[in-house]
Amino acid sequence: MAHIAVTPGVPGIRSLALFRPETAKPLYELAQVLLREPSPLSPAERELIAVHVSARNGCVFCASSHAAAARELFGVGQAVVDSVLANSPTDELSPKLHALLGIAGQVQESGRAVTHEAVALARMHGANDREIHDTVLIAATFCMFNRYVDGLDTLTPSDPQEYAAMGKRLSSFGYAPPKTA
Amino acid sequence: MAHIAVTPGVPGIRSLALFRPETAKPLYELAQVLLREPSPLSPAERELIAVHVSARNGCVFCASSHAAAARELFGVGQAVVDSVLANSPTDELSPKLHALLGIAGQVQESGRAVTHEAVALARMHGANDREIHDTVLIAATFCMFNRYVDGLDTLTPSDPQEYAAMGKRLSSFGYAPPKTA
Repeated sequence: MAHIAVTPGVPGIRSLALFRPETAKPLYELAQVLLREPSPLSPAERELIAVHVSARNGCVFCASSHAAAARELFGVGQAVVDSVLANSPTDELSPKLHALLGIAGQVQESGRAVTHEAVALARMHGANDREIHDTVLIAATFCMFNRYVDGLDTLTPSDPQEYAAMGKRLSSFGYAPPKTA
Repeated sequence: MAHIAVTPGVPGIRSLALFRPETAKPLYELAQVLLREPSPLSPAERELIAVHVSARNGCVFCASSHAAAARELFGVGQAVVDSVLANSPTDELSPKLHALLGIAGQVQESGRAVTHEAVALARMHGANDREIHDTVLIAATFCMFNRYVDGLDTLTPSDPQEYAAMGKRLSSFGYAPPKTA
């Protein structure tokens, strides 16, 4: 049972969006801008950053749902997603994305943990300011979502089919607050 | 120097809002809804939750600017703000706010660190679902802002007068993205 009285049976962030629509509006807008709207990083690459941080924070709901979204998006194979979920990103990733995941992992520890060396490595592999910015903000944003979802002890489904359905919805329709349970 | 090319001389989150206005819009809207719009917690109480988490994350810019805002808001004395900045909230705080700061401190560690006991203590002192929700989301949100500001190594002013001016602006006008440097 969640720490507060949310709609029974509604998982994760959706239950909180129904509880407090006023905060759901900017939260979903932030997710949509960061993960779907124009960026030099593809939606799949951005979802992988979200998966990396969520897995490192131990947030099963966020890691599983965004892993499912990444699997639906062009160019991300099962083995790549599994490697990120296991906190051991495969060398099949581009060197640039590998370096950006390194920065995201430092952000997950602390903002103050990000090193000049990690940023320089990403630049060496072609990352620009906008990609470094978006990586840091996606990582920071999932440090928020992970704490929000787990800090209120919301429902975490255990059935992989539920996440597969979420992945299809997120890859097709993006991020919009739920209107009903 | 920040990790990316932001406008020189512009501190903290403001430099990032100018760099990426598309993400600044939902970020500032989230701050405004959470810290200023109607809530059973006063704006001063909500600012103190932001200060507590930012201080624990070692984010000098966020801790100092929100401490300055708290000082401007009715009913928060200097000693109270200093106690929260020092991660040792004074007993002058209401038992309810003291318990809510306890929950916020657990969120700062991890979403999974929030205990049923901490939630039960807050309820015993009169906290309702909405107050518990807002406490967790404010704490989670500052785990994001702190990582965003420090993760990109933005300018952190050292002059207390700069923060005093920010506190006056935040207490009078709330949270809106800057239009110019």
